[in-house]
Amino acid sequence: MNSENIKKLFEKVKQGSMSVEDAVERLKDLPFKDLGYAKIDNSREMRVGYPEVIYCAGKTVAQVKGIVEAMMDNKDNILGTRATKEQYEAVKKICPKAKYNEQARIITIKNKKIEMSKTYIAVVTAGTSDIPVSEEAALTAEIFGEKVERIYDVGVAGIHRLFSKLELIRGAKVVIVIAGMEGALASVVGGLVNKPVIAVPTSIGYGANFNGLSALLSMLNSCASGVSVVNIDNGFGAAYLASIINRLH
Amino acid sequence: MNSENIKKLFEKVKQGSMSVEDAVERLKDLPFKDLGYAKIDNSREMRVGYPEVIYCAGKTVAQVKGIVEAMMDNKDNILGTRATKEQYEAVKKICPKAKYNEQARIITIKNKKIEMSKTYIAVVTAGTSDIPVSEEAALTAEIFGEKVERIYDVGVAGIHRLFSKLELIRGAKVVIVIAGMEGALASVVGGLVNKPVIAVPTSIGYGANFNGLSALLSMLNSCASGVSVVNIDNGFGAAYLASIINRLH
Amino acid sequence: MNSENIKKLFEKVKQGSMSVEDAVERLKDLPFKDLGYAKIDNSREMRVGYPEVIYCAGKTVAQVKGIVEAMMDNKDNILGTRATKEQYEAVKKICPKAKYNEQARIITIKNKKIEMSKTYIAVVTAGTSDIPVSEEAALTAEIFGEKVERIYDVGVAGIHRLFSKLELIRGAKVVIVIAGMEGALASVVGGLVNKPVIAVPTSIGYGANFNGLSALLSMLNSCASGVSVVNIDNGFGAAYLASIINRLH
Amino acid sequence: MNSENIKKLFEKVKQGSMSVEDAVERLKDLPFKDLGYAKIDNSREMRVGYPEVIYCAGKTVAQVKGIVEAMMDNKDNILGTRATKEQYEAVKKICPKAKYNEQARIITIKNKKIEMSKTYIAVVTAGTSDIPVSEEAALTAEIFGEKVERIYDVGVAGIHRLFSKLELIRGAKVVIVIAGMEGALASVVGGLVNKPVIAVPTSIGYGANFNGLSALLSMLNSCASGVSVVNIDNGFGAAYLASIINRLH
Amino acid sequence: MNSENIKKLFEKVKQGSMSVEDAVERLKDLPFKDLGYAKIDNSREMRVGYPEVIYCAGKTVAQVKGIVEAMMDNKDNILGTRATKEQYEAVKKICPKAKYNEQARIITIKNKKIEMSKTYIAVVTAGTSDIPVSEEAALTAEIFGEKVERIYDVGVAGIHRLFSKLELIRGAKVVIVIAGMEGALASVVGGLVNKPVIAVPTSIGYGANFNGLSALLSMLNSCASGVSVVNIDNGFGAAYLASIINRLH
Amino acid sequence: MNSENIKKLFEKVKQGSMSVEDAVERLKDLPFKDLGYAKIDNSREMRVGYPEVIYCAGKTVAQVKGIVEAMMDNKDNILGTRATKEQYEAVKKICPKAKYNEQARIITIKNKKIEMSKTYIAVVTAGTSDIPVSEEAALTAEIFGEKVERIYDVGVAGIHRLFSKLELIRGAKVVIVIAGMEGALASVVGGLVNKPVIAVPTSIGYGANFNGLSALLSMLNSCASGVSVVNIDNGFGAAYLASIINRLH
Amino acid sequence: MNSENIKKLFEKVKQGSMSVEDAVERLKDLPFKDLGYAKIDNSREMRVGYPEVIYCAGKTVAQVKGIVEAMMDNKDNILGTRATKEQYEAVKKICPKAKYNEQARIITIKNKKIEMSKTYIAVVTAGTSDIPVSEEAALTAEIFGEKVERIYDVGVAGIHRLFSKLELIRGAKVVIVIAGMEGALASVVGGLVNKPVIAVPTSIGYGANFNGLSALLSMLNSCASGVSVVNIDNGFGAAYLASIINRLH
Amino acid sequence: MNSENIKKLFEKVKQGSMSVEDAVERLKDLPFKDLGYAKIDNSREMRVGYPEVIYCAGKTVAQVKGIVEAMMDNKDNILGTRATKEQYEAVKKICPKAKYNEQARIITIKNKKIEMSKTYIAVVTAGTSDIPVSEEAALTAEIFGEKVERIYDVGVAGIHRLFSKLELIRGAKVVIVIAGMEGALASVVGGLVNKPVIAVPTSIGYGANFNGLSALLSMLNSCASGVSVVNIDNGFGAAYLASIINRLH
Repeated sequence: MNSENIKKLFEKVKQGSMSVEDAVERLKDLPFKDLGYAKIDNSREMRVGYPEVIYCAGKTVAQVKGIVEAMMDNKDNILGTRATKEQYEAVKKICPKAKYNEQARIITIKNKKIEMSKTYIAVVTAGTSDIPVSEEAALTAEIFGEKVERIYDVGVAGIHRLFSKLELIRGAKVVIVIAGMEGALASVVGGLVNKPVIAVPTSIGYGANFNGLSALLSMLNSCASGVSVVNIDNGFGAAYLASIINRLH
Repeated sequence: MNSENIKKLFEKVKQGSMSVEDAVERLKDLPFKDLGYAKIDNSREMRVGYPEVIYCAGKTVAQVKGIVEAMMDNKDNILGTRATKEQYEAVKKICPKAKYNEQARIITIKNKKIEMSKTYIAVVTAGTSDIPVSEEAALTAEIFGEKVERIYDVGVAGIHRLFSKLELIRGAKVVIVIAGMEGALASVVGGLVNKPVIAVPTSIGYGANFNGLSALLSMLNSCASGVSVVNIDNGFGAAYLASIINRLH
Repeated sequence: MNSENIKKLFEKVKQGSMSVEDAVERLKDLPFKDLGYAKIDNSREMRVGYPEVIYCAGKTVAQVKGIVEAMMDNKDNILGTRATKEQYEAVKKICPKAKYNEQARIITIKNKKIEMSKTYIAVVTAGTSDIPVSEEAALTAEIFGEKVERIYDVGVAGIHRLFSKLELIRGAKVVIVIAGMEGALASVVGGLVNKPVIAVPTSIGYGANFNGLSALLSMLNSCASGVSVVNIDNGFGAAYLASIINRLH
Repeated sequence: MNSENIKKLFEKVKQGSMSVEDAVERLKDLPFKDLGYAKIDNSREMRVGYPEVIYCAGKTVAQVKGIVEAMMDNKDNILGTRATKEQYEAVKKICPKAKYNEQARIITIKNKKIEMSKTYIAVVTAGTSDIPVSEEAALTAEIFGEKVERIYDVGVAGIHRLFSKLELIRGAKVVIVIAGMEGALASVVGGLVNKPVIAVPTSIGYGANFNGLSALLSMLNSCASGVSVVNIDNGFGAAYLASIINRLH
Repeated sequence: MNSENIKKLFEKVKQGSMSVEDAVERLKDLPFKDLGYAKIDNSREMRVGYPEVIYCAGKTVAQVKGIVEAMMDNKDNILGTRATKEQYEAVKKICPKAKYNEQARIITIKNKKIEMSKTYIAVVTAGTSDIPVSEEAALTAEIFGEKVERIYDVGVAGIHRLFSKLELIRGAKVVIVIAGMEGALASVVGGLVNKPVIAVPTSIGYGANFNGLSALLSMLNSCASGVSVVNIDNGFGAAYLASIINRLH
Repeated sequence: MNSENIKKLFEKVKQGSMSVEDAVERLKDLPFKDLGYAKIDNSREMRVGYPEVIYCAGKTVAQVKGIVEAMMDNKDNILGTRATKEQYEAVKKICPKAKYNEQARIITIKNKKIEMSKTYIAVVTAGTSDIPVSEEAALTAEIFGEKVERIYDVGVAGIHRLFSKLELIRGAKVVIVIAGMEGALASVVGGLVNKPVIAVPTSIGYGANFNGLSALLSMLNSCASGVSVVNIDNGFGAAYLASIINRLH
Repeated sequence: MNSENIKKLFEKVKQGSMSVEDAVERLKDLPFKDLGYAKIDNSREMRVGYPEVIYCAGKTVAQVKGIVEAMMDNKDNILGTRATKEQYEAVKKICPKAKYNEQARIITIKNKKIEMSKTYIAVVTAGTSDIPVSEEAALTAEIFGEKVERIYDVGVAGIHRLFSKLELIRGAKVVIVIAGMEGALASVVGGLVNKPVIAVPTSIGYGANFNGLSALLSMLNSCASGVSVVNIDNGFGAAYLASIINRLH
Repeated sequence: MNSENIKKLFEKVKQGSMSVEDAVERLKDLPFKDLGYAKIDNSREMRVGYPEVIYCAGKTVAQVKGIVEAMMDNKDNILGTRATKEQYEAVKKICPKAKYNEQARIITIKNKKIEMSKTYIAVVTAGTSDIPVSEEAALTAEIFGEKVERIYDVGVAGIHRLFSKLELIRGAKVVIVIAGMEGALASVVGGLVNKPVIAVPTSIGYGANFNGLSALLSMLNSCASGVSVVNIDNGFGAAYLASIINRLH
């Protein structure tokens, strides 16, 4: 995929230092580690400085453990999302420095020092009940090396709470807004800042929230421009995107 | 249904001024006028001073005309909602003073003077595109005798526009909030006033608004208390309820 | 937000009794208590005489306990909705007079005397299975100081049960109708009274009730005017709105 | 399919009056007329006295005309449902006695006398706007030879209108209830009669009626027993079923 | 509601044997027993010979027990649907002859002899997994006094199994078809019999069956006429309706 | 993508007959023709003998015309699906031999002879109204060189019509079943043949068919194995897949 | 159903070796074993060499055990899908050689040797979490006698992993693609191979995946031709169809 | 809202150059121009250099014309989205330099020179039919002063077309991916670039695309990180957000 590498292959073939067959073989062999049940992808250029990420949901304890084990060779930091306590216990046995945040369901393993960004990401939530998702976002961003400001429980039912924090929000390079129920906070924040707003609908609420559908549709239909949306409860995804944006210059 | 009337029936029977059979017959004969295709209901007590209302959608031109004709006897004011221009033209022929508001699709016939309320209803819209629904609400309320204040295009994308009108909104006895897209305005207003808020989701928007579903779910899940919801685009229903509330004392 | 207060700020600045910086700071500092994970909102004017309310769902036991603790300073009554028994036990430790209604999942703490309203709210249910929601409504209204009449199990399958209670329902200032399955009761009551009707769809039923969707859509499409709707199973919201209406004069 | 006929086939084979090959061929050849684009089914036993039925929607004018032409041989009555005026015009050219009801979109061709039933079917509608569907039902039932009583515009918003007609409804052998919006009429009627109630949801309404979904779900979740449901706007289907029931003895 | 009774009331008043006030009071007092949380409806005329029915879902153990207790006075048979084992255990304590079918979740109490019908209801299922619903239907019908023929596991994947039972099905006065997954059996049976077919979609299946939605929509859109539908998994409702039809003559 | 070609590239580089830069450039340059608004893909190996296909929906008349023009160079047969008459007229101007089937909305241009397959595809429809979709399938298959047997109007409401054609269906190598409404035909056919069945739900029907959703869910939940499903009304897709299967050996 | 057998029946009747009554009886008696709660279907021709299949979900332990018991007579291989461990334990008691794969929830009983196919089926998954579904597919295919190649965790987020396996995938006679979340892998594979692609959406993911709806819709709308879809998580169904295709010649 | 301005107000009051009443009035008077039916918002700081934007859908011709007229005073560039040709004709009369792009339904009025950005936005579409949406995005971005690279018709059905443009896409600062049907392109691009990806689902497709729902859900569930989503067909919103990101430094 990387044209620089392909060029080198051709050159080696031209110089005779590699056979045609070997070169063809190589092209099929872009870097990933194959565990059979998982293929660990080491190839994306941007991974420099980024932790390895494991989506733990739907994986057995043994699979999560096996993947962590394979990743430890790289000496990169490791992030496990949607991890159960049981998965964490298994990981801890092979990697005692692994840490677990129960609300956010996140395993973190710091294998090297994280240099923090100068600009920051604001993580804003409508209510206290949105904290599991916002901590998933905040902890993800932090292990990615992004500075984070948490602004919690500033939903539109008492809008003066939001205004009291407006300068802090406006100072961010990118804003993550996390809200359940009717998700109105995304539109209100979107109308008040001129930074990219990443909206995360949460499943908080009941009845006609249909497990987050109400907040999701709300955010997709935001009358304020500059707002985009990720999956329901996807704190990780919002943080990942925010990190990419926070590194742009 | 009216116990006072039933009592009178029994008394007439007791006094011998009415036969048992007649009394039984009467009970079945609560007042309505039967046109075959429609049964015009004249009986609800609250109708004193209220106009007759015709829901014109799905009725033929001849049916709407016939119903208006039958209603004209009562000398009440008449309101036709969701009326087409064609229906209006037919009505106008038998009732020259009938008026039509094309955006709101409303026919009004004033047969007697309307005394206006002292307290007022605030009709608040998020955007210019919500005006057809808000005019349905405002015109309905006005023919019901309610004073109305229109506050249009104060959606949350530019929230200072709302704040500039906040005192006018807070002065109302009941507030109708009309918004499409993500419908966030209902929650924001609900958090700023301590009056009943009737939220009307509109079908304004496109794509994932699913013809008003986004605003509907938003409003049903409002994190601000004191907000209730009527059907999508139902300006009439909101005004009817607001009128009942505005008359409470 | 309160123009009276802002005026005072300006006057203090004019008189030199407050610096410009302090005034600007104050504007940001509308009253709420910040616990980090929650910002307790003390500012809404209408709160006079109203209890503090905590939506307990999605909050940890520690968070609920912490919020109650912070609220106890205000000497207001406190209402916790959607509370688990575990949350209640924790609250009880710091506040022995706290009470819990298990069906309604409600914690109540009476810190001061409640003066009851003269006019009453009728709480009407279709079936016995709707009682958890109706008790959430009734208990909420009562701690808000509203007189309540409970009329239970009068669904349309045996409509004479409803008629036997009609006068009691008609005597209310505002009527809450709670029904699951097809939710027809809201329309029937709406056609029989001339008071505001707040309809609460419940998730009672199975199959094609889709967890309350059938009753919700039914109520939103009520052919009787004067009916508005709150979220599925939202007894609290209905009671809050009914209380606002019951206090109008 | 008919064991009597199969027996005869075997007997003919046994007697040698039919070859094995012919018998096998016959089994494949149950009676229908094959037009290529349509296979006209003449075989259902119950068809005695019943008209032939054509579902015209989605068929070209030429196809409808061709099917009618083929059916004319049987000298049965013919019913075309969901027919456009254009389809009717084409049919009329080959069959001048064909009649068309525009509201009900029904073509009827009476080729032989219809004997009417003694017991009757009650066709009850909530509103005037439901008449197109109820006329589809009533006209279908009538060409099937069923006596019909029409009771129109007795929706629950003015429930005394329904009570005034209750004895007429209770006198029927089977009741068809047709309602749009919230469809509450089906439950109310279901609770008042002890006859089979066939509920037809209509697409009448707007917004959150989602083209008949609200009435459909309402009727499926009816708290009154003895109610079953057919497709939205399916007046024909309700009448067909009502006819089968009306003929039971 | 019963005009015979109303007539008697009027006559008593006329004769002076009842005061007007008492008569009015009586009208409100149509027969039901009020337990506060439940109003037991004894008034429907058709109830002669029918058991009392309790929908147990969503009721507390104490409520079910209390309702049974109150019903025992009538000496009628009693049917409890969607009952948990815990509810049954409580009922059994006050009524030792109560029986429980665990698969069908049905409590039956036979207080008087049931006379069985001559004509029978066919209960047909697509698969073995549909048996809990079909037993709810069959047991309900049987306690209602209807003769039942069970024809199980004859789904369309092996359609010859259905044909082998066709004569038994065709012999019924009314047919209940119970199927999950794609629910095709209802259409196939509907095309093969000329009796009323009551289709019961079940939630059997997974994935895109969306808890019974696939079978529900399938049955509502049946291309075979004479088919109507009840709620997903509603064996009781199908049996109740089948019983009404089976008693028609 | 094609390792054979890549090998040749390397060999040319090795032999010096191609520069490294040219080789890298080539890899980016897999064969397609770039019109700016469209990139005509000429590269898929299987395209040998297959016509070029244009999905015309959503394209302007000018775009369709431009794409056809560019394709004419290849001397392949051309198939345009979902084409309007207007698009066809424009195509015809530059390519007089273009043909149009209005029901199927298909443009075909035969630039070379089509050799027909020995084995055939059975295209089976439930009703006459499904013919537009089935002709899209049949015409597509035929221009792909597949022999087709059309078996139309054999839906389950009159299942003997299906049985009379069963041997013809069983003789096919692959079966396409096209049905709207409840789509039961797919399951019934799936249970009767041991060939791959490709089910095409159609939008034929009304009300609770939700534009094809009912047939779609039905087919996805088929209790008969060996059935897979394509998009609603996707006659083309079914034929394309059937063609691939028909060519397997 | 099988014309060969019917012919034989006729011949026996003709020869007098079978009475007419017996022949008619036989026609009703196509081979299945009736357990009352289940009718084991032994008749489909294609079953030669195929195992018997039991869909265990929704069946009691006793029913599964009983069905297996009845099947053991045939000496065929047996496959139980969606089996619980408890069902397996019961089966094992009567059939010690029964095996269970917990992830795939599959019971297999090998009663006779399986001859493996020469051509193979590729089973391709997007992620590790899709393995339970893919193992259901792979194990099903293998007990059906199909050679299987497993290619796991090659989702589009790291598309080079897919390309490295492309030749293996292209070598298959039919490809099963299993993916949750957005299910994009089906389209990508569909664009790269010219073999039938059977897409299996999985319920892997959360939030707006709506339990597999996202992947399902994705796959149904695949822009790549040659892709068809089975039910969410239906590994068995995909394998069954793949087996039919793999045996075509 | 802008603390700098508030500070100035206070200072003026302090200095006596402004009365308290005037200052309070000013706070309510944040800059917007009130047309009654619309409130033109001139206040957002970020608007420097940005055009005024009018969402024309749902507005009357007169309203659009009136808003443009009022905006002309500011000498800013003006963008009208979702404009009809009729709206454009009216605007052109008062503003002859207005231009209209019919496919994109966009009106542009250049009142001052636009300085173009150095970094560029890549606008990538899956198919030719997505061009109306992508041109809305591209033209919006360009009038906002952003350099745009259009890469059209590179959907995953022929993925080599995408790879040929990969370097151009990777060179962008932010990538907009526009796709209908299954929307797989967003995930594939998201897996290949390390820049923010804004995904725009389009309503292109038919049947089970449910007007864009399939692409929407696909994109929300993208397995590739760094992808966020805007409303269906919302080219404008994507461009607005891309512009904000492109200006970050």
